[in-house]
Amino acid sequence: MSAAVITTLAGMVRWLELFAERGFEQTTATDIAQAVGVTERTFFRHFADKREVLFHGQQVFERAFLDGLEAAPPGTAPMDLIRAALDSATALFPDERRPYSRVRQTVIDANPALAERERHKLAGLGTVLAGALRRRGVDELSAAVAAETGTAVFGIAFTRWIREGETRSLPAIAAEVLARLSALAGG
Amino acid sequence: MSAAVITTLAGMVRWLELFAERGFEQTTATDIAQAVGVTERTFFRHFADKREVLFHGQQVFERAFLDGLEAAPPGTAPMDLIRAALDSATALFPDERRPYSRVRQTVIDANPALAERERHKLAGLGTVLAGALRRRGVDELSAAVAAETGTAVFGIAFTRWIREGETRSLPAIAAEVLARLSALAGG
Repeated sequence: MSAAVITTLAGMVRWLELFAERGFEQTTATDIAQAVGVTERTFFRHFADKREVLFHGQQVFERAFLDGLEAAPPGTAPMDLIRAALDSATALFPDERRPYSRVRQTVIDANPALAERERHKLAGLGTVLAGALRRRGVDELSAAVAAETGTAVFGIAFTRWIREGETRSLPAIAAEVLARLSALAGG
Repeated sequence: MSAAVITTLAGMVRWLELFAERGFEQTTATDIAQAVGVTERTFFRHFADKREVLFHGQQVFERAFLDGLEAAPPGTAPMDLIRAALDSATALFPDERRPYSRVRQTVIDANPALAERERHKLAGLGTVLAGALRRRGVDELSAAVAAETGTAVFGIAFTRWIREGETRSLPAIAAEVLARLSALAGG
């Protein structure tokens, strides 16, 4: 079986269930490898440690923001670049992914070290977005403000999307959060 | 000598210099206790671990935001409540504190685990501010958006305040960042 199974949605749900049942600390890399049918050696060829299993999608995630931003026409205003980035990134999370995202968040929220890592990765997104805005000619302060608020909008929208009972799509929620930001901050 | 010396500006500069010289990992709690003239036992009565030395001001910091927010008159708009919170919190960082804040940031930036802790504490501020806004009758989404953007504004302003060569005060920089947010997001 290919090692890629670790990162398929089905594979992810299997090891997430392990984390959720046994607790993250109590689950070893060997347990995860066994659960998805690969050897421990194969596991460590793909992940530096078991924490990384939860965060391996970071590059794809950041790339989606950048793709949206970079595809916008020249002269697009900073917050519209952020809107384009959000449209592109939220498309990575169709509704069939919501149950997985919910279990993943439960595991992360139950472990302070994982929650810190999650915050850190989201902060990294802010840095990446600010760099992309500056490359589009946005001045440094505007780039920082637009990038950090864009990151905050994503975080707020994502938290709402994975709430129990929430049925709206992530793109729809992100659009609502962005509109609220505009209404509040534009005064 | 009172244990309080650990948390005076002079005491903080002494152990920060230790961290900066030897590296955070290589500096023990005993080194810190010796540097400020207290016993190791006294040290551990005040701090759970050496990481906490860098973050002990968190409660005072959050309290300053809340004091500003809670002192605003009834009916104040959400972003104006955030402005009041920022005015109060930035007053905690007069210019004589800038050299200390710069050394502290150098230590934190050199250690990924500390940087993660710092992000986590800033995220905690967002949660605290959102709660305070809701207690003022602000709806949940507006509270989340205003709190998270307020936290981002503080982070951006603080980063600029401690840059080499920066001479403007933190309150002045925070006001500029907030005005830029309004200009960008209000479109």
